[in-house]
Amino acid sequence: MNDVALANQPTKELFIKMVVDAWNASTNQVTKLFDELSDEQIMAEAAPGRNTGIYLLGHLTAVTDRMLPLLGLGERSYAQLDKPFLATPDKSGQEIPSVQELKQYWKEANAKLSAAIATVSPDEWLAKHTSVSAEDFAKEPHRNKLNVLMNRTNHQSTHYGQLIYLKPKN
Amino acid sequence: MNDVALANQPTKELFIKMVVDAWNASTNQVTKLFDELSDEQIMAEAAPGRNTGIYLLGHLTAVTDRMLPLLGLGERSYAQLDKPFLATPDKSGQEIPSVQELKQYWKEANAKLSAAIATVSPDEWLAKHTSVSAEDFAKEPHRNKLNVLMNRTNHQSTHYGQLIYLKPKN
Repeated sequence: MNDVALANQPTKELFIKMVVDAWNASTNQVTKLFDELSDEQIMAEAAPGRNTGIYLLGHLTAVTDRMLPLLGLGERSYAQLDKPFLATPDKSGQEIPSVQELKQYWKEANAKLSAAIATVSPDEWLAKHTSVSAEDFAKEPHRNKLNVLMNRTNHQSTHYGQLIYLKPKN
Repeated sequence: MNDVALANQPTKELFIKMVVDAWNASTNQVTKLFDELSDEQIMAEAAPGRNTGIYLLGHLTAVTDRMLPLLGLGERSYAQLDKPFLATPDKSGQEIPSVQELKQYWKEANAKLSAAIATVSPDEWLAKHTSVSAEDFAKEPHRNKLNVLMNRTNHQSTHYGQLIYLKPKN
């Protein structure tokens, strides 16, 4: 088989694998980093005057948790994170969970999302997500569930770049 | 048409649009940020002791420039950037181009890559990139050109998260 013949293998499955693999790689990278950092390091700002690690941890957990209903994959678990970590900026004086609690939520939200992702059929990935109207989707079929996962991967990568700064310099 | 019927529209073209759109959005975001920053701000470190903006600008330009041969899309233009911005870390005392020169290279490398991307056929996107062997690709067909573009988007997003810190705090 030449390259182009190979490329004609079932295309949907291949694309879905690419996007899901990239999401998983990004999530594993973030989890590994949080596991390497001390609670004190996670409490610190990524750079002077910028978001703290704990804010970014809560923020990324809330975003992952919200993907369940957004992708039509079930109920979310941590709606209480939206106010302190999505609706308001860091250091707004709200009561927030501890680093250890948030790390637990992070892992549980990701485990639940990963399990749900594994059940999605190829055609479902190409269906519309729940925040786009049927009318808009008819005109813009790229606004599908797989595109949400791809864009959330980029969002997570952006914050990963910042979280790296929580690690001590070599 | 229901969602699933819509989802059966030509799948390759749809996926390719999703990935290319995400790349373009990321590149435009980085370009806009560099255009907003002064040369002095770009010369500064993103955080104390971390990479400077100029290093990240050179690094991202080299990565984009290398994508042309990697994707089989032609010759690169700025091989001289590899040593200072890929092979060695920041502040290694090498002579490097000015911010203005690098911003020009960034825009030219992206214009050249975008023009080349627009010529790639759907089947070519699913063919192997030039750094994977035919044997490996036969077993791992996800290691195709489109996957390179998707992963480079994530890489760029990671550094974008850091580059944001060059902007003055609100």
